[in-house]
Amino acid sequence: MTTTLISGGTVVGATGRGAADVLVDGERIVAVLEPGSELLGAELARSVDRVIDASGKYVIPGGIDAHTHMQLPFGGTEASDTFETGTRAAAHGGTTTIIDFAVQRYGERVEDGLAAWHEKAAGECAVDYGFHQIIGGVDEASLQAMRKLPDEGITSFKLFMAYPGVFYSDDAQVLRAMQVSRETGMLTMMHAENGPAIDVLAEQLVEQRKTDPYFHGIARAWEMEEEATHRAIMLAKLTGAPLYVVHVSAKQAVEQLAWARDHGQHVFGETCPQYLYLSLEEQLGASSEQWGAFEGAKWVCSTPLRSREERHQDAMWQALRTNDLQMVSTDHCPFCMKDQKELGLGDFRKIPNGIGSVEHRMDLMYQGVVTGELTLERWVELTSTTPARMFGLAGRKGAIQPGADADLVVYDPNGRTTIGMPVDAQGNPTGRTHHMNMDHSAWEGFEVDGHVDVVLSRGKVVVEGDEYLGRKGDGRYLKRGLSSYVS
Amino acid sequence: MTTTLISGGTVVGATGRGAADVLVDGERIVAVLEPGSELLGAELARSVDRVIDASGKYVIPGGIDAHTHMQLPFGGTEASDTFETGTRAAAHGGTTTIIDFAVQRYGERVEDGLAAWHEKAAGECAVDYGFHQIIGGVDEASLQAMRKLPDEGITSFKLFMAYPGVFYSDDAQVLRAMQVSRETGMLTMMHAENGPAIDVLAEQLVEQRKTDPYFHGIARAWEMEEEATHRAIMLAKLTGAPLYVVHVSAKQAVEQLAWARDHGQHVFGETCPQYLYLSLEEQLGASSEQWGAFEGAKWVCSTPLRSREERHQDAMWQALRTNDLQMVSTDHCPFCMKDQKELGLGDFRKIPNGIGSVEHRMDLMYQGVVTGELTLERWVELTSTTPARMFGLAGRKGAIQPGADADLVVYDPNGRTTIGMPVDAQGNPTGRTHHMNMDHSAWEGFEVDGHVDVVLSRGKVVVEGDEYLGRKGDGRYLKRGLSSYVS
Amino acid sequence: MTTTLISGGTVVGATGRGAADVLVDGERIVAVLEPGSELLGAELARSVDRVIDASGKYVIPGGIDAHTHMQLPFGGTEASDTFETGTRAAAHGGTTTIIDFAVQRYGERVEDGLAAWHEKAAGECAVDYGFHQIIGGVDEASLQAMRKLPDEGITSFKLFMAYPGVFYSDDAQVLRAMQVSRETGMLTMMHAENGPAIDVLAEQLVEQRKTDPYFHGIARAWEMEEEATHRAIMLAKLTGAPLYVVHVSAKQAVEQLAWARDHGQHVFGETCPQYLYLSLEEQLGASSEQWGAFEGAKWVCSTPLRSREERHQDAMWQALRTNDLQMVSTDHCPFCMKDQKELGLGDFRKIPNGIGSVEHRMDLMYQGVVTGELTLERWVELTSTTPARMFGLAGRKGAIQPGADADLVVYDPNGRTTIGMPVDAQGNPTGRTHHMNMDHSAWEGFEVDGHVDVVLSRGKVVVEGDEYLGRKGDGRYLKRGLSSYVS
Amino acid sequence: MTTTLISGGTVVGATGRGAADVLVDGERIVAVLEPGSELLGAELARSVDRVIDASGKYVIPGGIDAHTHMQLPFGGTEASDTFETGTRAAAHGGTTTIIDFAVQRYGERVEDGLAAWHEKAAGECAVDYGFHQIIGGVDEASLQAMRKLPDEGITSFKLFMAYPGVFYSDDAQVLRAMQVSRETGMLTMMHAENGPAIDVLAEQLVEQRKTDPYFHGIARAWEMEEEATHRAIMLAKLTGAPLYVVHVSAKQAVEQLAWARDHGQHVFGETCPQYLYLSLEEQLGASSEQWGAFEGAKWVCSTPLRSREERHQDAMWQALRTNDLQMVSTDHCPFCMKDQKELGLGDFRKIPNGIGSVEHRMDLMYQGVVTGELTLERWVELTSTTPARMFGLAGRKGAIQPGADADLVVYDPNGRTTIGMPVDAQGNPTGRTHHMNMDHSAWEGFEVDGHVDVVLSRGKVVVEGDEYLGRKGDGRYLKRGLSSYVS
Ligand SMILES: [Zn+2]
Ligand SMILES: [Zn+2]
Ligand SMILES: [Zn+2]
Ligand SMILES: [Zn+2]
Ligand SMILES: [Zn+2]
Ligand SMILES: [Zn+2]
Ligand SMILES: [Zn+2]
Ligand SMILES: [Zn+2]
Repeated sequence: MTTTLISGGTVVGATGRGAADVLVDGERIVAVLEPGSELLGAELARSVDRVIDASGKYVIPGGIDAHTHMQLPFGGTEASDTFETGTRAAAHGGTTTIIDFAVQRYGERVEDGLAAWHEKAAGECAVDYGFHQIIGGVDEASLQAMRKLPDEGITSFKLFMAYPGVFYSDDAQVLRAMQVSRETGMLTMMHAENGPAIDVLAEQLVEQRKTDPYFHGIARAWEMEEEATHRAIMLAKLTGAPLYVVHVSAKQAVEQLAWARDHGQHVFGETCPQYLYLSLEEQLGASSEQWGAFEGAKWVCSTPLRSREERHQDAMWQALRTNDLQMVSTDHCPFCMKDQKELGLGDFRKIPNGIGSVEHRMDLMYQGVVTGELTLERWVELTSTTPARMFGLAGRKGAIQPGADADLVVYDPNGRTTIGMPVDAQGNPTGRTHHMNMDHSAWEGFEVDGHVDVVLSRGKVVVEGDEYLGRKGDGRYLKRGLSSYVS
Repeated sequence: MTTTLISGGTVVGATGRGAADVLVDGERIVAVLEPGSELLGAELARSVDRVIDASGKYVIPGGIDAHTHMQLPFGGTEASDTFETGTRAAAHGGTTTIIDFAVQRYGERVEDGLAAWHEKAAGECAVDYGFHQIIGGVDEASLQAMRKLPDEGITSFKLFMAYPGVFYSDDAQVLRAMQVSRETGMLTMMHAENGPAIDVLAEQLVEQRKTDPYFHGIARAWEMEEEATHRAIMLAKLTGAPLYVVHVSAKQAVEQLAWARDHGQHVFGETCPQYLYLSLEEQLGASSEQWGAFEGAKWVCSTPLRSREERHQDAMWQALRTNDLQMVSTDHCPFCMKDQKELGLGDFRKIPNGIGSVEHRMDLMYQGVVTGELTLERWVELTSTTPARMFGLAGRKGAIQPGADADLVVYDPNGRTTIGMPVDAQGNPTGRTHHMNMDHSAWEGFEVDGHVDVVLSRGKVVVEGDEYLGRKGDGRYLKRGLSSYVS
Repeated sequence: MTTTLISGGTVVGATGRGAADVLVDGERIVAVLEPGSELLGAELARSVDRVIDASGKYVIPGGIDAHTHMQLPFGGTEASDTFETGTRAAAHGGTTTIIDFAVQRYGERVEDGLAAWHEKAAGECAVDYGFHQIIGGVDEASLQAMRKLPDEGITSFKLFMAYPGVFYSDDAQVLRAMQVSRETGMLTMMHAENGPAIDVLAEQLVEQRKTDPYFHGIARAWEMEEEATHRAIMLAKLTGAPLYVVHVSAKQAVEQLAWARDHGQHVFGETCPQYLYLSLEEQLGASSEQWGAFEGAKWVCSTPLRSREERHQDAMWQALRTNDLQMVSTDHCPFCMKDQKELGLGDFRKIPNGIGSVEHRMDLMYQGVVTGELTLERWVELTSTTPARMFGLAGRKGAIQPGADADLVVYDPNGRTTIGMPVDAQGNPTGRTHHMNMDHSAWEGFEVDGHVDVVLSRGKVVVEGDEYLGRKGDGRYLKRGLSSYVS
Repeated sequence: MTTTLISGGTVVGATGRGAADVLVDGERIVAVLEPGSELLGAELARSVDRVIDASGKYVIPGGIDAHTHMQLPFGGTEASDTFETGTRAAAHGGTTTIIDFAVQRYGERVEDGLAAWHEKAAGECAVDYGFHQIIGGVDEASLQAMRKLPDEGITSFKLFMAYPGVFYSDDAQVLRAMQVSRETGMLTMMHAENGPAIDVLAEQLVEQRKTDPYFHGIARAWEMEEEATHRAIMLAKLTGAPLYVVHVSAKQAVEQLAWARDHGQHVFGETCPQYLYLSLEEQLGASSEQWGAFEGAKWVCSTPLRSREERHQDAMWQALRTNDLQMVSTDHCPFCMKDQKELGLGDFRKIPNGIGSVEHRMDLMYQGVVTGELTLERWVELTSTTPARMFGLAGRKGAIQPGADADLVVYDPNGRTTIGMPVDAQGNPTGRTHHMNMDHSAWEGFEVDGHVDVVLSRGKVVVEGDEYLGRKGDGRYLKRGLSSYVS
């Protein structure tokens, strides 16, 4: 087995930082050492197979993106990143674990849905991956099947209060599923938007010929996110289920989460980079020469981008600081404009919902450190340590400690990253970064401080500089345990 | 320098745990290692000076008690623990750092107060110690002196909204001091009780011949803690000062803290073991053969023990879980019944305020892990990691990481500790634990799971089993930096 | 036309009281006069047809019960009071106006439902009556029909978030109906309980053989009332609809209402006497020789009686004082034990939901004045003035002023009323009062201060002492205007 | 005695309106009658001494301004309106009762202060007047004296949490005074601003040469109003005292009041026209040719005008609707620019605090009806009915009912009022209205709908059109009873 010493860097964890070397033996971290310790370190550099110089850089646990949708069938098309392309992009961006969503649709067997996702992912991934299970049809059979998921390493399932006729669960179904959550300790993940009400609003907007992407954001009003969040909280209170609300974007929804947490409920929430940086006015309302007002389709996702004027973004950053939100995931769900987003020309309801960000999460969040929104430690906590603890990977992922998988990133705070398509319309190189399988970037032109220099996945260097050194199938399926936060 | 390997234990930190050996070289931790690592560990046991077997036990960072009052002059007497006896008791209980309060009284120079405390402590302590500065008289001179404290390693000062005529600052003074806090980054620590109002209530109770210790708790109504907490928060909001509220005991005060934190203020709070376990009805209202209703004097402290019926204790535990409170300190301020607490016979106002707990904090809080109130990680966070980060000791204390001081505790979860006077009234040994310089214990008869087995202070074993192996002066003064939570 | 002078009493209104005579000419009040005024009053007593001596008594506007269900088909049976018997009982109790609910069921035309209710009531009533419209099936046709209701004098409609398969509207339907509410100014009345979730809980309880009436209260958990109340509020916020929540019983639901009102929404709430006096433990959990644990069936209503221990009752009284609740109605919906409540023997879900109280509301609420919960003025406001203003009867009902209908009650504060069946099981007279068409009383044995002495309905004395002097058909249909509170 | 019939108008009360004639016999209302009632009214017009035609107009109870300061000594000068000039201006504006503040200064006897105010007012007033008592020095003697005030018809006293060295009470004093409030049922009125903290801020601003009137508003930060409001609430909670907070201007203070009220405390609040219309930016920050930046001195009052940008005004209007605030008073405290406001040239702290509005309150608030902020009924409630009930004048003032004092206003909704100095700088008439004894108007140029046509004070017409028909001494001292809201 290969041995590696990452030396000279500043190791950063969720609660502190310090100068330390990290020794990797095979796939795991075996020691964290004082640099130049007479006792151990002096000879170490010579005895290991490889030394990575991290001087002047941060050494952090690999990122964990707990919310991705590779190859998700949606709205008559399929998310454009395969497990291969998506996880490779993730690796480029310093994310060494993803947790994707296996899907059970109404009328299907949960076991079959899960098997299908295993098939999609097996042997394809660049980094380790786990699954949450989407339950699109709560009934006796699926409730039974859910009880067996923990044995499969799946300790969280997702319900939708939106998308009637697709993934939607009504409150009776939510209640029954939450009872299983309470009983098994599995986390209930919730897409919290009042779908039936939103669909009425959307239909009425279309009837009024308000069909541009911008109206996607109008139809999905914050009131309907706040409402569904409150409802999920009360159903969780009634059943005793632990609840994790995905892609929180409205400040009023955060208030609901804060209220529940302050009253002792096991309620958690994530937000995504898009809700921290992008807005209804600027992106959903964007217009371009190529696409006109349909330009905004690039940023159609649900929950939608919120109004900058209403200051939701500020509230999200604050909630990340106050721990009213505990994590940042991407909800990576990429669609190309061509043939995919285009399906919604003339009717925003038909635009496939999703934004691709799995590659850029670590950089975008590090920007929050640069601007003073977050501390360095909180950056690591939000992107890696808490995701690992939240989703049953503690001890293996999310922290630099002996015995943990050697998923490590050497991050250069003095580096610089410009996001965008590497080649412009004229075919000229732009010097921008984008490895996801999309024909555009939702983050085109974003320039941020910081750069992912080296990425190790279970001890193997998979990215160095901007070069991908790994290969398809490096990533393994992760059987997850129960959440550390639910006990 | 001595080298020590603590092997076979489970290392516990604020965000996780794992099997790991800890290597100590001289005063510092130099490595955290996978047990039995072929690369390093195999030979290590033979090469170090000493191996401590921690199999089946937890290895945790030494406790940090950020609120003690050794030798504090109060009410015409002086707290009964010297720096020598108090820190030795701390060591017995797994606490390897204390932060005590130097006192400036009205009319004195801050510099002189600080110098006096240095003199009391220097060469006396069993474990490392730092100082906060009590400012009992805010005026131009003291404000000037406060600005120089960070150079002395003192990065926090305490004000009192209670005790008019003794330590009390009025709102004008609080405001001015908080402006210095904002300017320098020093933490404002606050004793948040409305002293002027409380003193009226106390006077009226005594006039009504309600003089027993129980009425100490009646006079110091929760409304007056809530009120002062709110006031401190608003003054902090106005000035931009970071605020740390000491000895929080009322659930309504916690609501105020939660509100401020959710709104983005840098506001923090500690509670103490007495507010988690003891109550107005049971302790302040206690009666004994020896003392009659004056028995309650043993538990006269401020803020007071609260009503169990009103469920403040439950709220404190919950707040420790939800992080609405961030730390547990003791407010250790011991007085003997004889000659000290006795001063208040016939008038509860004259009972010296304080309870001694510095020795038992780690065990009492571990009991919260046993009963399911806290996770193991949260125990470490509340008692060590957060105190270090809060008070400018990050990197040195509070975490087991290379480069940090080797303040370590081997904690036996299967052990058992019974607190109380080691010898009974008849002179027979009781098998109970109590090393503080008091003639009684506020915790007499408390039996808890868990036991402090070995304690290292900067690499030196100072406690083993129940034996003290260190000596006076082992502990050094800690120059503290600014809080990690204020930036 | 008959002229009447009510002389010597204390006229009580919502904002004050005073000694005054009330002069009635035909159906209307024509003057309120200083007693013995030289200018007018001196000769008046001799010139009118009738003088009613109200010395030592209160003269109040007749009660308005804005929530009754005469002859309501429910659960395979029909509420036992006809418009005839129910309104006669109302008159006995000092209530001179009821607003009943016409019903449109799913699949029926709104117009037909309304016509059916007109038919039931016309020519039958002892006192004036109006209708709200229940919309059991929101669709294009019913939405169209709703827009015409104000022309019919119906300016409020009721939706149900409970009772799936019977009256239930899903959120899409609620949203559409609320849009009509916004557009027309009609009040949206809401039965706010999460029916789909409750039905799951009820089913599970029955599966566990928990079939007694008590479990009706367990299944309909307060969390599900709080949740639905919040949801209704947010849908109202989104649409701009004015919202009136019926039969509020959970203190947490009141918190939601208070929050919405403090934030400027037009949100209102009523509670009922049963939620002020009766409880889960004492009534729903009651047991008797005759009925065993099925005794509790007498008090099965929805929302259910709440736990006394959780102190919902106290919260309701407080909310009536603070105006977080604005009205007291009865939700009068009587069923006999025999043949009706009995349907639920062995399965609480089959017990017809409802309690009969239309007769006793004024007395039960006056008891709140006696016990100091309410002021005399607030009693009148809650039972008459606000109902009139809320439901578009201002100027005609709810206040003693010239031009208003002469619906008047002479109320004896020194009288006494004992509620219960007038004849006991052995056929002996009990001296108790009960005129509703039921074989039991939900208020059996309640003794309260105060007594309804004389009742005038549009100038005609319909009750004197305990004698009914009116006749079937005295009561006329009231075309109501828009709410005074929505503008 | 003179008899008067006000005929053909719409009588408006707090809970409704209706066409009615009002019959006045001597000083009192003796009847409210249906216009043209055959029974009574037909001959009435001929038999009374005088008929006032109110066709097309509102007939409302005379306004009650519960917060005025005639001839108040303040900052080395004295409020410029005498009881004569001030009450005459009040009459012009439809206000027929004022409640002024007698002053006890520190070191003086309460009895002497009260006697002095009686002397100032007796025989001078145009309308009826009562007194609150300012307690500027709480001590044993004044506490004793307070207990006797209700016998003098004074049932409310005011404390100041601001103005240290002048009127300031510390929390110990507030507590003791509130205990008397609880004991006697007197209302505690509170000037809720943290004076000691504000004075530090003001001093620092002046040191920084920020001496313009604008900085008065900066020094008196909303945080210090919110804080003091919360403190007053908690002291009231502790003592059980009913609390009335004067001149509320910060939206955060309203939140505190709302919170206390929703939790059942007897807590009330008033705001003033200036906080509804004027702002920090526009008025305090105003500049003029004559005065430069000192122009803002015209609007220096405490609490200060708040930032329009922060939307305090909107919050005040909303609170008036939601009843989180219950009344509108003026805090009339006029000072001329010449010789008075001028004292603060170069130091805003020396500007006498106060604005004159006693004349314009009814019109300014009616403007809220015109713009849709308030209903007509709420206008009457806020300006007359609630003040009467709040301050122990129910039955006599605040409502049009038999037996009440005939304080009546015929208000023309189609009229128009332009406020301002009647003669311009060149001596030309402006057609504007201003009868207060000031050399400027805080409301210069305000044009509002509505006009006070006729004003009756205890049956006597004192204003007709713009003519004053009464005379000095018409107004009598009102012995007030306890508040209707405290029982
Ligand atoms: Zn989703
Ligand atoms: Zn998603
Ligand atoms: Zn303290
Ligand atoms: Zn202390
Ligand atoms: Zn209902
Ligand atoms: Zn009903
Ligand atoms: Zn004031
Ligand atoms: Zn004033």
